[in-house]
Order: sequence, then structure tokens, then C-alpha cells
Amino acid sequence: MTSPIDLLRRQVSDLHQELVRYNLVVWTAGNVSARVPGEDLLVIKPSGVPYDELTPENMILCDLDGKVVEGEHSPSSDTAAHAYVYRHLPEVGGVVHTHSTYACAWAARGEAVPCVLTAMADEFGAEIPVGPFALIGDDSIGRGIVETLQGHRSPAVLMKNHGVFTLGKDATAAVKAAVMCEDVARTVHISRQLGEPVPIAQGDVDRLNHRYQTVYGQQPAAR
Amino acid sequence: MTSPIDLLRRQVSDLHQELVRYNLVVWTAGNVSARVPGEDLLVIKPSGVPYDELTPENMILCDLDGKVVEGEHSPSSDTAAHAYVYRHLPEVGGVVHTHSTYACAWAARGEAVPCVLTAMADEFGAEIPVGPFALIGDDSIGRGIVETLQGHRSPAVLMKNHGVFTLGKDATAAVKAAVMCEDVARTVHISRQLGEPVPIAQGDVDRLNHRYQTVYGQQPAAR
Amino acid sequence: MTSPIDLLRRQVSDLHQELVRYNLVVWTAGNVSARVPGEDLLVIKPSGVPYDELTPENMILCDLDGKVVEGEHSPSSDTAAHAYVYRHLPEVGGVVHTHSTYACAWAARGEAVPCVLTAMADEFGAEIPVGPFALIGDDSIGRGIVETLQGHRSPAVLMKNHGVFTLGKDATAAVKAAVMCEDVARTVHISRQLGEPVPIAQGDVDRLNHRYQTVYGQQPAAR
Amino acid sequence: MTSPIDLLRRQVSDLHQELVRYNLVVWTAGNVSARVPGEDLLVIKPSGVPYDELTPENMILCDLDGKVVEGEHSPSSDTAAHAYVYRHLPEVGGVVHTHSTYACAWAARGEAVPCVLTAMADEFGAEIPVGPFALIGDDSIGRGIVETLQGHRSPAVLMKNHGVFTLGKDATAAVKAAVMCEDVARTVHISRQLGEPVPIAQGDVDRLNHRYQTVYGQQPAAR
Repeated sequence: MTSPIDLLRRQVSDLHQELVRYNLVVWTAGNVSARVPGEDLLVIKPSGVPYDELTPENMILCDLDGKVVEGEHSPSSDTAAHAYVYRHLPEVGGVVHTHSTYACAWAARGEAVPCVLTAMADEFGAEIPVGPFALIGDDSIGRGIVETLQGHRSPAVLMKNHGVFTLGKDATAAVKAAVMCEDVARTVHISRQLGEPVPIAQGDVDRLNHRYQTVYGQQPAAR
Repeated sequence: MTSPIDLLRRQVSDLHQELVRYNLVVWTAGNVSARVPGEDLLVIKPSGVPYDELTPENMILCDLDGKVVEGEHSPSSDTAAHAYVYRHLPEVGGVVHTHSTYACAWAARGEAVPCVLTAMADEFGAEIPVGPFALIGDDSIGRGIVETLQGHRSPAVLMKNHGVFTLGKDATAAVKAAVMCEDVARTVHISRQLGEPVPIAQGDVDRLNHRYQTVYGQQPAAR
Repeated sequence: MTSPIDLLRRQVSDLHQELVRYNLVVWTAGNVSARVPGEDLLVIKPSGVPYDELTPENMILCDLDGKVVEGEHSPSSDTAAHAYVYRHLPEVGGVVHTHSTYACAWAARGEAVPCVLTAMADEFGAEIPVGPFALIGDDSIGRGIVETLQGHRSPAVLMKNHGVFTLGKDATAAVKAAVMCEDVARTVHISRQLGEPVPIAQGDVDRLNHRYQTVYGQQPAAR
Repeated sequence: MTSPIDLLRRQVSDLHQELVRYNLVVWTAGNVSARVPGEDLLVIKPSGVPYDELTPENMILCDLDGKVVEGEHSPSSDTAAHAYVYRHLPEVGGVVHTHSTYACAWAARGEAVPCVLTAMADEFGAEIPVGPFALIGDDSIGRGIVETLQGHRSPAVLMKNHGVFTLGKDATAAVKAAVMCEDVARTVHISRQLGEPVPIAQGDVDRLNHRYQTVYGQQPAAR
């Protein structure tokens, strides 16, 4: 019988291919993780392994301090940030990190993506906010993510000069947020190249977000 | 024997893959529908189902009020807008909706795409117009589409801050219009980044459009 | 035994897939033709047939007035322009037409692409020039191509508000020119978005073009 | 038994497909080479052969003056530049050359890509510098590469009006640098289209680069 952790290994491995499919990553950049429900564990991508070689078996099982519990490789160098998020946001079941082009372009300027598309109101419910510049190596990145997104509707944060982190109730929802984040970051960027996008009234953003988060799709949407 | 509705299910299912092929959609966004000829019915995509999992069998059959007649899933959340179009424009046999990047970039600024390419004169015969900002949930979007496109040569409308709707004599024609809409929205955007495109004289737009709509291809062109 | 015309049908059919591979065309736009060596005949794409359905068998054989000699479908609506080129430029063995995005963006402004890349000096030996605005339906487009490119080093011309035509000693060379034209049109466009590209001295353009046209590759390069 | 040179032929042949996968090349442009460890030899792409037809067998073996030692075709027209690099930089085991779009756009303006992304600090440790304008045909290009990169942290140089050369401890590392170079050239370009990216403090660039070059991945990173 397949254990819940084995199923999660497969899901996390497969979801990495969505990052490739949507052109969110190059070479070995980017990573997806999932919390093991009911346990202080997470499943994450190994560090520096090509996307073509990712398998359920080489995903790494870590505890919520980012220490390896099971796995032959080192875990993603961003594991500490993922682990910090899981320790501090119990409702989060999945985390994704990419350097997707348009999101990074906003992040390099330290500028939030304004909410000027109905699809953005649906998925993000607000602007996509900017988190602090933070160096890798301690809890700075994780803390920056949590402090920026706690109490914010957006499941995505642009970490300054760095890239995007997205959260979800599970790994699929976090990957969806990463895909949508790049999509709207690109569209709003292109729109602004030739003038100012028309703002959407706050009340309309609220109505759209409420409707989407409660009635869209075949079951309640993520996060 | 395959029924006309089964053939239409297959056609609508297959046409969704054209939206993927031409990069007009991400995740589960976008939808194609077709009117069932001679009946007050339409076939449309289910809501929130990944493009890889769309099949003739999971397409939804609805009446022209958008109520499900046959289908296990909920229909696309844009079904009301499609249905409104079919109720009010009897010559329309297919409707497509996308959030394609460049079209949305114009839509976010509430700006029409000017007709500065011969391919645009051929297919659209005019600028691609902007429809009103409208919330999902009632007939606002459908009404905005119909009021903008009735009496207009363009089979495409940019709904403000939202996305594109395209119409056609059948679903294939509507998908073609969606593909061409993004193509010209992109080219004209890029052209304008470095200066002003040269306008095409109205008489030449008229001549090109007339010729294309009557003699191009192996049979009369759509819409 | 396979006849020379059958071989050419296959070559022209296959080369259309290169237009798809390099994203130079959408839907049924674009076309490739080849002169039948030693005969007043050309092989060209049928009109309005999807790229997936192009085969050696459905390519159209026409005379150099554009009249169909063999083929079930109508020939490309641009056949008259191809035929005019073959009638007036005996050294040309292949012609390609596309609406590729960046080339069209320059064409919509009626602006030549300046020669600011060594790869452009190699392949084009000069700026890529702009031809006149011309309506489809008579010899205007063909005449515009020939008058612009006769005596010019460039195998590509940007027809104003329309698209690109490229010429070559054979169809492969013309397709290569279409691929390179879009590539340099894109790169120079992007370069100019943030400032002025540095010009290359005319003597250096001459030296690069001479070398490339005589010594590059395994055999003498096209045109 | 497979000889070390045969293994290198396969590796170099395979790595060319990465240039295609990441859209760094069109038609026959671009090339990868590898030094044969412990010998005054290099393996490089043949000139003017399509990427689809590259095989281990048609890779060319040259000495470090660029003269063919084994191979039926002519070697890449850029062989002299590769050979010059191997003669002058003994720590380099792989060299890549492309005309990738965004890198060339910076190169056409003669402008370095500023280090405003943490991924760029990781991989390049500094701005990506510009080398001189140099004609093909003698040692000018090779000398320009070496003089620009000697003592520089960046494994990539933008040769003015031309393209990119990247170096690595082996061919894989050089290909990775070519992929990352285009990725950051694109992101920084897009960021600058709507304002100025925020600089990263030099001390932070240093810390990021030191960490990445020593601890990232499953083994020490390239160069």
C-alpha cells in the first residue's frame, strides 16, 4: 500500500513539471514543497538536481526546522524559508518559490503589482505585495514572507531583488498561485508600458475575490 | 451512430487545445462554447478542470439560460455570458473567452487596438473595441459584449480590466478570432513601444476586409 | 522514381513546419514557395489549410502567372506576389511570407531595422528595408518587393503595415532569412527599448557580409 | 570501451540541445565546446549543421590552434575564439557562444547588465561586463573575451554588437552560465522598462556569491 508520504512525494515531484511547463524556472532554479498533514514534516525538491531527473524517490523529507529526515541529496537551499512558513502559518500546506521573469522584474524595482485585472482580484484579492530584501542562510527570508503575507489576501509575495514565494492550502494551490502570479505580473507590466491601467474599485475587488474564493470551480478554491 | 451533439462535444473539447497551443490560457482560465444548431442548447467547458483533462464526455450541455441539461461538473463560470450572446445574436454559433496577455494589457488600460495591420483589416475590419467593466454574476458581461459588437465588424471585444470575448459563425471561427486577436494585440503593442504605427486609410481597410471575408481560403471565411 | 517536382513538394511542405517551429506564423497565415528549376513553375502552400494538415500532396503547382497547374485546393492568396518575384528575379529559387511579430511591428511603423548586430551584417549585409504599402489583388505587392530588394543585399523586405517577404537561392535559404529576420528584428527592437544601439561601421558591415556569404558553413551560403 | 574523447563528443552534442531548449539559438547559430582534459585538444560543433542533425559523431576534434584533428565537416566558425580561451585560461574546460536575444540587446548598446538580482549575485557575482567590438577571422574575439573576463567573477561576457561568450570549469557549467545569462539579461531588461531596479549592496553581492560558489547544490558549483 502506498503511504501518505509516498503520495506526497509523487505530487511534489509532478508539480515541479508545472513550473517547467509554464516557463517559471530555468536550469535547477525554483522549488515546490508540501507539508505532511498532521506531522511536523515537509517534502521538498533536492538542491541542484535538473528538472528532468526529479522523481518521487529523490524528493527530500525534512522536519520543520529544515533538517533532512530521509533523502540522499541535500534539500533545496530554500528549505529554511519553506520550513519557517510551515512553522508560523499552520493553514499553509504548500509553498512554491520561483525566479519567474515578470514577477522578478517587479521585485527588482521593489514595486507591488497593482490589482487592475479581474483575474487578479479573483486569485489575489489585492495587489501582490513586496517583502524585504533578505539574505539566504538564516530565517530572514521566511520571516519576510510571513510578515508580509500574514493578514494579506494575496497568496504571493515578491521578495525584493530576489523572486516570488507563493503559499496555498496544499502544494497544488501554491503552484497555481505561482502560475497566476507570473501571468498577472506579465500582463500588468505590458499594460503599463503604454500608459496607466485603469484601477478597479475596491468594492469590486472585494466582491470578485469573495465570489471566486467561495463558488468557483468544482470545489472550494485554494486558500 | 454519433449524434450531432456528440460531434460538437468533441469539437469543443479539441478546440480548447488550440487555446493551449497558442498560449492564450494558463491553468484553467479560458473557455470555448458552441451553439447546438437548431436547438436552444450550447456545449461548454466545465469549470475549474485542467486543460489536460478535458474530454468530449466532460463538456457540459446547457440551455440558453445557462442551466445544465447534461453534465457531471458545473459549467464554466462564464456560461451566463456565452448564453446571453447566443440568445441575442442568432448568427453566432461559437464563443470564446480568454485572458490572453496582450489583449488583456489593452483591456486593462481600456484602450481599443487600432487597425494598423493588413491582417487586422482582413480579420477584424476595424479596431478591436473595448466593452464596459462588468462584474460576473448576472447578465452584465453578456450585455456588454452584445452592445459593443452588434453592428461592429470586429468579432472580438476587449472587456475592460478583464479579457477578450470572440464570436464566430461556429466555434472554430471564434477560436480563430481569439488567436488572431492576441496576435495583432501583441504586434500593435510592440510596434507602439518605439513610435506610432502608420494608420491604414479607411477605404483600404474596407477593401481588405471585404476581399478577405468573401474570397480567402477554400470556402467563405467565418463571420 | 521520385520526380524533381515531388521532391520539391516534400521540401516546401516540410519547410512550412519551420515557420511553426520558430513561431513565425499563427493559424493559417504565412507561406513558402519554391521555383521548379528550369521550368516556369512554382510549388506553394494551399490557401487557408492548417499547418498540421499540410502534406507534399496538397501543395499547389502553379505557373509563373500564379495559375494552378496541379492541385485540388486554391493556392495561397499571396501566390501572385511569389509569382511576380520569380518572373522578375531569375536568381531567386524560394520565397517566404510571414506576419512574424517583431518584423511586423517595424513594418507597421514603416521603419527599417538598422544593422547593429554582426549576425545581421552576416545575413543581411545592411538594414532590412521597408517596401511600399500595397493592396493584395494585383501585382502591387510583387512589384513592391522587387523594386525594394533589387540591388539590395538584404534578402528580406518589410512590406508596410503588412509583413515580411524573404527571398533565397532556394526555399531553404528563404526560410532561413525569414527566421533570421524575425530574430534580428526582435533583438534590435528590444535593444532600442532602453537606448540607442551602437552602429557598426560600414566597412565592418561589408567585411562581415563578404566573409559570411563566401566562407561560412559547409558550402557556400544562400543568396 | 568508450574513450574519454567519445564521452566528451556525446556530452558536447547533448549540451547543444540545451541551447535549443532554452531558446538561446535559432537555425545554426551558437556553439558549445569542451577542452579534452590533459590534452591540447577541444571538441566543438561543426559549422552550419542544423541542431537536429548534431550527433556525437559529427562533433569536430581540433587542436588548441583551432586546426581540425578529426572530423568530416568544418568546425564552427567561432573555433578560433574558443581555442584562444583554452590557450590562455587553463582553468576553463568549456566555452559557449550564443546570440541569445536579451543578452544581444544589451550587447548592441554596449551596456553591462547590472547586478540587481540575488540569482545574478549567485551565478555572476558582479555585473555581466561588455567586451570590445571585434571582427571574426583572427584572435580579436578570443583576446577580447580573455581580457574582459580575466580577474572578473562573471563567467559571461557580452561582446559588443555581437553576442555572448560564457566560460566554465566544464561544458555543462558554461552552458548553465549561458542559460542564466539570458535569464538575468531578460529580467533586468524588463525591470528597467518601468523604472530603475534597486541596487544590491556590494557586501551582499559578495556574501551571496561566496555562499553560492561554495555550498550550493550537491557538489561544488562550476567556476
